[in-house]
Amino acid sequence: MTDSWVNSAEILGSDLPLELSGTGNRRAVLMAALRDAVRSGRLAPGTRLPPYRSLAADLGLARNTVADAYAELVAEGWLAARQGSGTRVAERAVPVTPVHRPRTPERAARPVHDLVQGQPDPSVFPRTAWLASARRALAAAPDDAFGPGDPHGRPELRRALAGYLARVRGVRAAPERIVLCSGAAHGLRLLAEVVGGPWAAEEYGLPFHRELLASHGVGTRPLHVDADGARVDGLTRRDRAVLLTPAHQFPTGGPLHPARRAAVVDWARATGGLVVEDDYDGEFRYDRQPVGAVQGLDPEHVALLGSVSKSLSPTLRIGWMVLPQRLVASVVAVKGEREQWSSATEQLTLADFVESGAYDRQVRRMRQRHRRRRDQLVAALERRAPHVRVTGIAAGLHAVLELPPGTERSAVRAAAWQGLAVEGLADYLHPGAERAGRAEGARGASNAGPAGPADAAAGVPGRDGLVVGYATPAESAYPEALEALCRALPPG
Amino acid sequence: MTDSWVNSAEILGSDLPLELSGTGNRRAVLMAALRDAVRSGRLAPGTRLPPYRSLAADLGLARNTVADAYAELVAEGWLAARQGSGTRVAERAVPVTPVHRPRTPERAARPVHDLVQGQPDPSVFPRTAWLASARRALAAAPDDAFGPGDPHGRPELRRALAGYLARVRGVRAAPERIVLCSGAAHGLRLLAEVVGGPWAAEEYGLPFHRELLASHGVGTRPLHVDADGARVDGLTRRDRAVLLTPAHQFPTGGPLHPARRAAVVDWARATGGLVVEDDYDGEFRYDRQPVGAVQGLDPEHVALLGSVSKSLSPTLRIGWMVLPQRLVASVVAVKGEREQWSSATEQLTLADFVESGAYDRQVRRMRQRHRRRRDQLVAALERRAPHVRVTGIAAGLHAVLELPPGTERSAVRAAAWQGLAVEGLADYLHPGAERAGRAEGARGASNAGPAGPADAAAGVPGRDGLVVGYATPAESAYPEALEALCRALPPG
Repeated sequence: MTDSWVNSAEILGSDLPLELSGTGNRRAVLMAALRDAVRSGRLAPGTRLPPYRSLAADLGLARNTVADAYAELVAEGWLAARQGSGTRVAERAVPVTPVHRPRTPERAARPVHDLVQGQPDPSVFPRTAWLASARRALAAAPDDAFGPGDPHGRPELRRALAGYLARVRGVRAAPERIVLCSGAAHGLRLLAEVVGGPWAAEEYGLPFHRELLASHGVGTRPLHVDADGARVDGLTRRDRAVLLTPAHQFPTGGPLHPARRAAVVDWARATGGLVVEDDYDGEFRYDRQPVGAVQGLDPEHVALLGSVSKSLSPTLRIGWMVLPQRLVASVVAVKGEREQWSSATEQLTLADFVESGAYDRQVRRMRQRHRRRRDQLVAALERRAPHVRVTGIAAGLHAVLELPPGTERSAVRAAAWQGLAVEGLADYLHPGAERAGRAEGARGASNAGPAGPADAAAGVPGRDGLVVGYATPAESAYPEALEALCRALPPG
Repeated sequence: MTDSWVNSAEILGSDLPLELSGTGNRRAVLMAALRDAVRSGRLAPGTRLPPYRSLAADLGLARNTVADAYAELVAEGWLAARQGSGTRVAERAVPVTPVHRPRTPERAARPVHDLVQGQPDPSVFPRTAWLASARRALAAAPDDAFGPGDPHGRPELRRALAGYLARVRGVRAAPERIVLCSGAAHGLRLLAEVVGGPWAAEEYGLPFHRELLASHGVGTRPLHVDADGARVDGLTRRDRAVLLTPAHQFPTGGPLHPARRAAVVDWARATGGLVVEDDYDGEFRYDRQPVGAVQGLDPEHVALLGSVSKSLSPTLRIGWMVLPQRLVASVVAVKGEREQWSSATEQLTLADFVESGAYDRQVRRMRQRHRRRRDQLVAALERRAPHVRVTGIAAGLHAVLELPPGTERSAVRAAAWQGLAVEGLADYLHPGAERAGRAEGARGASNAGPAGPADAAAGVPGRDGLVVGYATPAESAYPEALEALCRALPPG
């Protein structure tokens, strides 16, 4: 290490990359260039980077762009920041916890164990049943299915989903008010464009969703989350929409309290705001009937987003929006004049997959599998770390392990040291959330109408916790992953 | 008809739609609302709309937004504008020539005959061969194919395309520099974000592409088009990229002259600009070997865009970009951290389809079919309208019929009257193109280096012409469509 820093030419090569002067996502481009420089060895571990202000001036970029890129690369493990010593290339500059980055050898070293939430085990994709549906769907498809697609989506799939969602999620969904898309993220983009900002969002949530909204000009304001879910009494007339995960607050784990469900619908009716219900894992509830979707309470004020990414595979790129009637034409118009994204042959195949009952069978199989894994996780913790409280386990594909204050970062780092990719609650916290406020508002303090007792399985993780996804590892690798997890936990 | 106009409440209902105050595409939303109002009968034929200024003030929209929406709805046939009489709901407010609108009963009355360019006959999709590829691909796929996708695209398909494009299009494409996307439009979006504006573009081209670039902040400046293709001598240092259709200028029909191919690469080398080669129908050339891609001349300065939308089906949503190495990381970064668009199962199926030779067979079959249709078109014109010159027939899925000055609009209208959807050249002209300049620069006047003789099959359509797509109609409907076309042509 030296005390001086590298200059921009040493980072990016002698020419200013063409793309850095584009109108697009300069932060992403700069991040890619920096990762490249580290990966290729052009920047050795320990190398000191210029202060973000000077790199920004050098490259003609906004200071925030460079500051954000540095911050994210620190979060990904490529860079390290220390008080008084500036930002340096990390000593072990291989991200072991790629937060939302594909885990392929081309982009990052693969950790040995993967307990990052969000993905089902890819080995359980029902290849044979899917092919059988494809065969029937292609045989039955009308010719126009192979022409330019209607952005509304194939009617066959909209009909199939309308029936399924009514039956399983209590959604009131005429096929006309379903618009198909390439996934929940695509749905969010479309709603951002149609509805405009600002939105309120749960203080804990996917950073990817917040960033995506921001890139469409929609800022999000954090809503406190306590044991009963989001504090919807914090909504105002200024919020044009609120993004919620009512079935299973993501990632803290509780369902939204019935009184709050009613309250958020009242807010929408009174203000004309929109409730955006991200029903990301509503089908996976283990100990009793799934909580129905809020959408069923008032289809004219709730837009429900769903996809097959958790239940089947994120590879198919099929999602859906169940919309208030008044938004349907606008969302379709904003989507484009033809279908540019989702494959119609996949849409038809999924329609058959749902109608034939194969989807129900797959969900059932996955539910059993996830429940077994959850039980294994709980048992391992009881045995090896009984002092660690585990919450959010009534549903979903992940749980939250509460940690003593101030230990989360160390636990994540200890996990990485064990070759285990796992994330902390801090990875999901809205940058605008007030830590003090959260602490005060936590655990049961609810003023959204007559609040009942909190869901026993849910909890408020306080400030520190690990978000443990138990769906991803292959069957054979799971026990060892749990072993590595227990070793990474702070002693009781 | 009355002399007063309706007010905004009569148009949009009593509540201002939520979505009109969004940050998104307000023009699209307003257009959807106006179409709805007409379709539902709320606005009767002949109803006079408010002047765009007053509707804009009423709704709090920019004047341009409303003016553009009016203009597009006039172009689509929903509204009619007459000097001194303002804008009214068209007497027969059913668009018969939906320019880039899905031709589904839900959105517009279907014309009897369809000679709008752009789409292969959907009935020729090779269902059996596609399914066979799907079966092999799903059986062979590694488990990780069903996990979150790498935005670079499946390596299996990138390898298959690298071989195919080298063999058929003379493209120099290592799999590493291919990035998969959901179609050429998606590729354009990504390049717009990475490269930034302004771009130059052929004065004739897809309005959809220009609008898409504009919506990503990239303005386009028109380049004259003559018998040798785009006048690339009009490129300057200010242009960051140029969008070209070198194989078959869209829609006028000629290939880019060899001297101009060399000249455009020289421009890119000298200025650091990027040549964006839209290879939209490069595989379909009838009378001799296809013209190779410009990309083969200099892979470091040309980005080639291609897709299966013309060769196979627009329904699959698979396209590719072959990029200069320096752009690959940035384009992948801008695409997102995971694959959000293209289905990996479809990518794998296409990889097998290409590797197994099925794609070559399909292209061969389509080429024979299109050539036969082109010959039928030429024969019908020789018989019924020998005074009409037909150009751009050496390749592609459409031809241009030159018309006497001032007759194009009438011919399009006469065709609509026959139930025939067909477009005029004016539908493709860049709004910034200067008519006088085009006329002067036309026919052979080239100063892009030592110009040889123009391609015999190509021509400059002058100012008026019909763009006739001959690929879409079903086999049985084609002769009648040609009959309707001949009836719509001006007498000799």
